[in-house]
Amino acid sequence: MRMTELWKGKELAGSIKAEAKKLLSTSNEPPKTLAIILPRGDASAADYASFIAKSGEKIGLPTQSIVVDDAKELFSALTQASADPQVGGIIVQRPYPQDVAEEDLQAKVPEEKDVDGISFTNLGRLFAYHPRYVPATASAMLRLMKHHRLPLKGSRVVIVGRSLAVGRPLWALLLREHATITVCHTRTKDLRAEVSRAEVLCVAAGKAGLITPDMVSSEMVVVDAGYNYLDDGSGPLGDCHPEVGEVAGAYTPVPGGVGPVTTAVLLLHAARAAVGVG
Amino acid sequence: MRMTELWKGKELAGSIKAEAKKLLSTSNEPPKTLAIILPRGDASAADYASFIAKSGEKIGLPTQSIVVDDAKELFSALTQASADPQVGGIIVQRPYPQDVAEEDLQAKVPEEKDVDGISFTNLGRLFAYHPRYVPATASAMLRLMKHHRLPLKGSRVVIVGRSLAVGRPLWALLLREHATITVCHTRTKDLRAEVSRAEVLCVAAGKAGLITPDMVSSEMVVVDAGYNYLDDGSGPLGDCHPEVGEVAGAYTPVPGGVGPVTTAVLLLHAARAAVGVG
Repeated sequence: MRMTELWKGKELAGSIKAEAKKLLSTSNEPPKTLAIILPRGDASAADYASFIAKSGEKIGLPTQSIVVDDAKELFSALTQASADPQVGGIIVQRPYPQDVAEEDLQAKVPEEKDVDGISFTNLGRLFAYHPRYVPATASAMLRLMKHHRLPLKGSRVVIVGRSLAVGRPLWALLLREHATITVCHTRTKDLRAEVSRAEVLCVAAGKAGLITPDMVSSEMVVVDAGYNYLDDGSGPLGDCHPEVGEVAGAYTPVPGGVGPVTTAVLLLHAARAAVGVG
Repeated sequence: MRMTELWKGKELAGSIKAEAKKLLSTSNEPPKTLAIILPRGDASAADYASFIAKSGEKIGLPTQSIVVDDAKELFSALTQASADPQVGGIIVQRPYPQDVAEEDLQAKVPEEKDVDGISFTNLGRLFAYHPRYVPATASAMLRLMKHHRLPLKGSRVVIVGRSLAVGRPLWALLLREHATITVCHTRTKDLRAEVSRAEVLCVAAGKAGLITPDMVSSEMVVVDAGYNYLDDGSGPLGDCHPEVGEVAGAYTPVPGGVGPVTTAVLLLHAARAAVGVG
């Protein structure tokens, strides 16, 4: 008998997209464009851009893709999009061209168009508890927890993964919710011991099956941001072994858990930027 | 018999100030001024400003105090100091006038003059592992640990306190050193249980005697950033009960531990800004 509560993201994602659509349809001015800057010749970046464009179309968000070859073209496109009053939000899609220094990008994406929350100012705002645009995956994880009315104040949370895209922003969001948080990573000596102490386990390690069922208890809520493809093409797989979804008290399935909420949050950010309320 | 190794800050502070002095004396251009904006009528802010001015004088750092009454005057002084090519660094001393929104200050202090590391951009840089100016107390704590060759990679660190001035920046610095870090605070359910698991305990809670000797073991390194005065005027007292300094494996005494290193770090930041290498 399955005891695990499955936290699917579809319903929450739907309500966030509805909020975005409403923002766009009730604005006095026509919505501005979301500019997506992406590297030439990367199939998955192109797929993602076209997925965002289609998702945007459904809610009334105009998008525009700009394909670039190298750092010079990327920063030229970025400068133009930053100055263009018709552009509301900007996404710079990974992988960046090899000659792009990420630091330059983080310094140059303008805060008010930075719907991915990658700029130093938006990261600093998050760190200082004055968030504006927050990286979407971290925001989606928190939203899923709140949607399920998970008590966070004083809770013992363990975050596995410390990326700038997920683990670190999630830490800031959850600290602001008064959780007691331990961040684990590749250098953590005894991952099992740390993880097993969690009341809430958030995983964003980018490693399929890293969290095994024996690390998890039936009391534990497990939020899995993993979305991994194996070399043989199989996937997407979470950072948790599939059996974790049968042991934990609650689990966000992969696919269908954090993922759809992340997309919805990104669209909401883009909608805010499009109507100038971000 | 005292077994605790006392980590006094004097020697390290001396070498940091020597580095600052050398920067100032070997610069081709005359050093620029450190502008200290402080509120009228606050004795401790005035004392601190005059302490920094005297300390600056000893190493060849020109300083200038600007006393302000309210937000309007503060932001006017800040705008002027930001634009003034003769000003290298800017400190906005607490307590801020009551009508100052801290968020405005964090948005407006220019990154390259922000020697206290309070701006969104400098906080974001720290969060993103591209630090420029880091809040001095957190930097001092890390420097003390490195000075004593404390292994941090994989170490279990517990930070008590999550202020934007100390706890959070220290978390970012130590995460970058690959420590496994738990941040505790007023909402943490079982502080004793969390603290007792630490190999390295960093305390910046602003509460005298919060950490009691029974929480600490002889294996533990305890870095205490507390500097508390009691209502009867006694102090400064650390966030650790005095007996912690007899139980822990190593302890930074208060006063004389983290404090002098913090001042030295701030002077080094100001020196860098003064000669334009920040």
